[in-house]
Amino acid sequence: MIVVMQQRAEEAATARVVRRIEAARLGAYVFHGEERNVIAVLPAAASAGPLDADEALRDELQALPGVERVDWTTRPFKLASREVRPAGTQFALGEARVGAGVVVFAGSSRPRSAQELVALGRAARAAGAQAFWAGRGDGGELRHDLVSALDELRAEVGLPVVVDVWEPVEVDRLSRHADALQVPGQQMQNFPLVKEAGQGDRPVFLCRGPSATVEEWLMVAERALKAGNMRLALCEQGIRTFEPSVRATLDFSAIAVAKRLSHLPILANPSLPADHWEIVPDLSLAAIAAGADGLLVDVHLGEADEASAGPQSLPIAELTTLIPRLVATRAALNRRTA
Amino acid sequence: MIVVMQQRAEEAATARVVRRIEAARLGAYVFHGEERNVIAVLPAAASAGPLDADEALRDELQALPGVERVDWTTRPFKLASREVRPAGTQFALGEARVGAGVVVFAGSSRPRSAQELVALGRAARAAGAQAFWAGRGDGGELRHDLVSALDELRAEVGLPVVVDVWEPVEVDRLSRHADALQVPGQQMQNFPLVKEAGQGDRPVFLCRGPSATVEEWLMVAERALKAGNMRLALCEQGIRTFEPSVRATLDFSAIAVAKRLSHLPILANPSLPADHWEIVPDLSLAAIAAGADGLLVDVHLGEADEASAGPQSLPIAELTTLIPRLVATRAALNRRTA
Amino acid sequence: MIVVMQQRAEEAATARVVRRIEAARLGAYVFHGEERNVIAVLPAAASAGPLDADEALRDELQALPGVERVDWTTRPFKLASREVRPAGTQFALGEARVGAGVVVFAGSSRPRSAQELVALGRAARAAGAQAFWAGRGDGGELRHDLVSALDELRAEVGLPVVVDVWEPVEVDRLSRHADALQVPGQQMQNFPLVKEAGQGDRPVFLCRGPSATVEEWLMVAERALKAGNMRLALCEQGIRTFEPSVRATLDFSAIAVAKRLSHLPILANPSLPADHWEIVPDLSLAAIAAGADGLLVDVHLGEADEASAGPQSLPIAELTTLIPRLVATRAALNRRTA
Amino acid sequence: MIVVMQQRAEEAATARVVRRIEAARLGAYVFHGEERNVIAVLPAAASAGPLDADEALRDELQALPGVERVDWTTRPFKLASREVRPAGTQFALGEARVGAGVVVFAGSSRPRSAQELVALGRAARAAGAQAFWAGRGDGGELRHDLVSALDELRAEVGLPVVVDVWEPVEVDRLSRHADALQVPGQQMQNFPLVKEAGQGDRPVFLCRGPSATVEEWLMVAERALKAGNMRLALCEQGIRTFEPSVRATLDFSAIAVAKRLSHLPILANPSLPADHWEIVPDLSLAAIAAGADGLLVDVHLGEADEASAGPQSLPIAELTTLIPRLVATRAALNRRTA
Repeated sequence: MIVVMQQRAEEAATARVVRRIEAARLGAYVFHGEERNVIAVLPAAASAGPLDADEALRDELQALPGVERVDWTTRPFKLASREVRPAGTQFALGEARVGAGVVVFAGSSRPRSAQELVALGRAARAAGAQAFWAGRGDGGELRHDLVSALDELRAEVGLPVVVDVWEPVEVDRLSRHADALQVPGQQMQNFPLVKEAGQGDRPVFLCRGPSATVEEWLMVAERALKAGNMRLALCEQGIRTFEPSVRATLDFSAIAVAKRLSHLPILANPSLPADHWEIVPDLSLAAIAAGADGLLVDVHLGEADEASAGPQSLPIAELTTLIPRLVATRAALNRRTA
Repeated sequence: MIVVMQQRAEEAATARVVRRIEAARLGAYVFHGEERNVIAVLPAAASAGPLDADEALRDELQALPGVERVDWTTRPFKLASREVRPAGTQFALGEARVGAGVVVFAGSSRPRSAQELVALGRAARAAGAQAFWAGRGDGGELRHDLVSALDELRAEVGLPVVVDVWEPVEVDRLSRHADALQVPGQQMQNFPLVKEAGQGDRPVFLCRGPSATVEEWLMVAERALKAGNMRLALCEQGIRTFEPSVRATLDFSAIAVAKRLSHLPILANPSLPADHWEIVPDLSLAAIAAGADGLLVDVHLGEADEASAGPQSLPIAELTTLIPRLVATRAALNRRTA
Repeated sequence: MIVVMQQRAEEAATARVVRRIEAARLGAYVFHGEERNVIAVLPAAASAGPLDADEALRDELQALPGVERVDWTTRPFKLASREVRPAGTQFALGEARVGAGVVVFAGSSRPRSAQELVALGRAARAAGAQAFWAGRGDGGELRHDLVSALDELRAEVGLPVVVDVWEPVEVDRLSRHADALQVPGQQMQNFPLVKEAGQGDRPVFLCRGPSATVEEWLMVAERALKAGNMRLALCEQGIRTFEPSVRATLDFSAIAVAKRLSHLPILANPSLPADHWEIVPDLSLAAIAAGADGLLVDVHLGEADEASAGPQSLPIAELTTLIPRLVATRAALNRRTA
Repeated sequence: MIVVMQQRAEEAATARVVRRIEAARLGAYVFHGEERNVIAVLPAAASAGPLDADEALRDELQALPGVERVDWTTRPFKLASREVRPAGTQFALGEARVGAGVVVFAGSSRPRSAQELVALGRAARAAGAQAFWAGRGDGGELRHDLVSALDELRAEVGLPVVVDVWEPVEVDRLSRHADALQVPGQQMQNFPLVKEAGQGDRPVFLCRGPSATVEEWLMVAERALKAGNMRLALCEQGIRTFEPSVRATLDFSAIAVAKRLSHLPILANPSLPADHWEIVPDLSLAAIAAGADGLLVDVHLGEADEASAGPQSLPIAELTTLIPRLVATRAALNRRTA
């Protein structure tokens, strides 16, 4: 159930609704909107099952002062549903604002050295990127030098940084060296990791697993939101299909669908699935046209780094050309709403 | 092999190269470019196998007057390869030009009556569409009244029309009532049909089958080209994946990849795979951003037709709003080349 | 609706039920069972839509003499549904009986010459195969010599033969030279072909398309049955997935599911999807264990033919070893029913 | 590289080969076979890259006493490759022997209570199962009562138990309460977990992820083997495809392929992907026919538990009937080798 408060309702009315929900041994989460509050009714923590359709409670809530209406929700996810926050979620990341316009994260899916990381950051900033993405390949030990390079990047280059987390014990440590944490696609169903990240104090980017449906993805987002972290963004990075010309098929319908089902910002990583940097600009432009709020793009510094950076990595000079095209395209789309 | 002629080479030089190729019992196809001719060397008709790498012939061709260079081609398709026509293929369809800008086909995947067809055509023209698409559902008998409606559409509404063909015997008949023929996705590997359409005199739109790789698609395009029809366009309309929120996953990487591998124009049909008209505008904008040369969009006339038209069908009023956004987006992309 | 007659009901009672159904402008098809008749109620030919749930008609039919009960069917397919023929369909093919035990078709997916075809037939018979399968590669012209070889195979080797049909016009001609016709997987949705084969007088093997769901497959089977041909078998030959170690993933769940949903016999072709003959015996044994009624196996005569036959083709000597293992496995399964 | 020792070679000769490999700063792992030893040459721990083809080292090793031959390996996995242990791996689990015949694990993918777990264990033993499988649903906290139930099962019922692990910190604790640990499919690429399990002292079952290729699966197996745990088995439990009639498509080709590529035992879980218990017996029989060494089957105690156990769960009475059929089928297969 979702309780939609009246526009002029006072906070005390909202508080009363919450108390009534909690008295029924259910959970309540308040979305404070500019125009009105919306309260999501959640199953009690102990219960694994779906929320029963309690007609009596609904009627009672409906009768409370300040309540405009009580809606049944048909989706299995509640906190992630667009119904509870129709205007969409936004949050700050350094000077960028995720969920409000195009945010470009440039970086590397597999940085090799601290120097490279910092040099990439400087080049990314010069190219017009607003944030930095430090992948961690296939996980593996946290290298001390790379972690220190994140500090340097933030302090000296001045870009906010998102970094991959692979296991629960890393959440705390990396939160001290990065502005946001990314749960890689293969770890989407690593629920202990998702929960730990959801209990942390850094924004979380939740990548879609290569065989996860949109609904499964949003159900995992729901876990992170329930754990308390409302600064959450989704990241589409391709699904496994039979097509061999790419590493994975970037799923643009999923961007359009997730945008309608959920209030969460949605980013796209065109580099991982493309596996050929030549098509990364077209996929980037298309992702923005499909409604994505930003991009994570794998870049390299030029010829010397080409081989080690991998075939998906865009030469940084191409990014310099791409960013104004992204901005112009976003403007031309003339979207009615976020 | 591909023989690239010099810019100033005379036609007689090209003719000499062709004769030499034919003397080796191989096929030759000349692409007459604005700047230069390119000649594709093809396996003899009788041979099913790949073209052998004949070093001696290559050296001989290289030595002929007017020849700039002879390239080995590594692709299994030759006539469909971008190497033979780097500037891309364009052809006229009524006043529209496929392969040069955005061409919007509005129409119906399953028209019910002649009146509806003509009314849709008028509305599509008013909405700004440049061409009309008449699908035929699951095939079935050619209805006389619907065929007549195509004539009326062309004569009175003045829109060029593309219509689905389902079996070889229909190619001739429908060529008299339509400006272009579309091979539906499920029929992509109906080789007798592809060959017949390739021998016809109408432009052909070859839809990708729901489980065809990009290479398989281009190999079928090669068959139509070999049959003689160079006015061929590709149409991406989604692949089968595990994702249940849509009917099929529109494959934008395939648009970007096919654009690089082939000189053929590429269209996208966002309606069939979307199965929800609400996401059709976003997918349309994204397809143009990914490099598509046009769109086939299923539309209906309004509330009365909504149920019968199906959930994928866009209200015509939405198309009126969408077309200027498509044009603005295309302009903003600032592409270097087609 | 399905009308289940009483065990002791006379044929006149069945006829009365049929007349009543036809009076309601619906179609009726009688399955004559050993124990009782079952009558499927079908939509009128002109109607494309689903059968309405006509409560009044149901009550009337229920009241007729000899009727045991009238069931609603929830499946979109009626004639293909197991409900109408719980004991399963069987039909003869030469001395073999499809639907009753294991029938092994040995043959070639792409025979090269008439001599090879006849030699393969002799070897297949000696190896213990009960029938012969002549594929036709990617379609293409019907070669006169290969067609004659089919006659020779049947007359001199004495094996019944199934051959691929690719377009409607071939149905008649090939029916004179083969005991059964196979609709290849890529042509599953070539509806004009399916209809023509369904109107013919030869048993039809309907291969599953590489991206067809089980339900879509059975809906196409329904078309062939409606066209009048009740000697129909299904053939599973793999679906497109992301796994690159095989050409397609042979779908054993589909065998088990189709067996429950439909009364039609189901065959499996392990060669096409395997693409490595080494795994064909294991896949063959597994298909029989999953419930398949027979197998189509691509074989070659030995070392000299290995390269041209392709990597999926089993050396004939391996088939000689395999057939007794298949028979022993089938016996060990100790199935309660077909 | 793989060094195959002569049959009569002494252990000292093997030791000399190992020392020579280590002197080249490479790793060596000795497989002690009944007939001969085989030594896998591995990249040094620090190196991420593939092993260079060192011709000089190869010649040197070839010349050492007791060496029969040195083979290049073309596979990216070494320790998991069948080349290094052609006879296949076997290990004991209680009285059962994984890799030598059919081992049936009966259990529950989502046990609800300690009592249920113990009751299921007793029933499974009575039905003929040789081992018990305790899934853990979607992970979540380790419930103390369920962990204690594992002890009871082992002590009183006398069945060896495999239990799911979800995060690295659980490996130690669960190793004290279970005979083997299972890495669930969604956690296949949770590399910290795989490494921890590989450093433990319990046999590990590595489930295939729903979108993992066979090669990716074996590469993860390689990680566990490298971490030191040679008692490893693979578990196939279905891949994500477009087919909606099942939860996932159990991939029998993968069983046949993995059996040839690797010496590791391979199990199948037909329950998870089937999602309908009615097809579990057929899939189980087919898995054994395809070469699987055992099965994990979800069972429930009867009508009272049916709803909570889920649609994939087989009534225990069906298991009692199934086990002798599995044994008879395995015998009938008449396999030449494991």
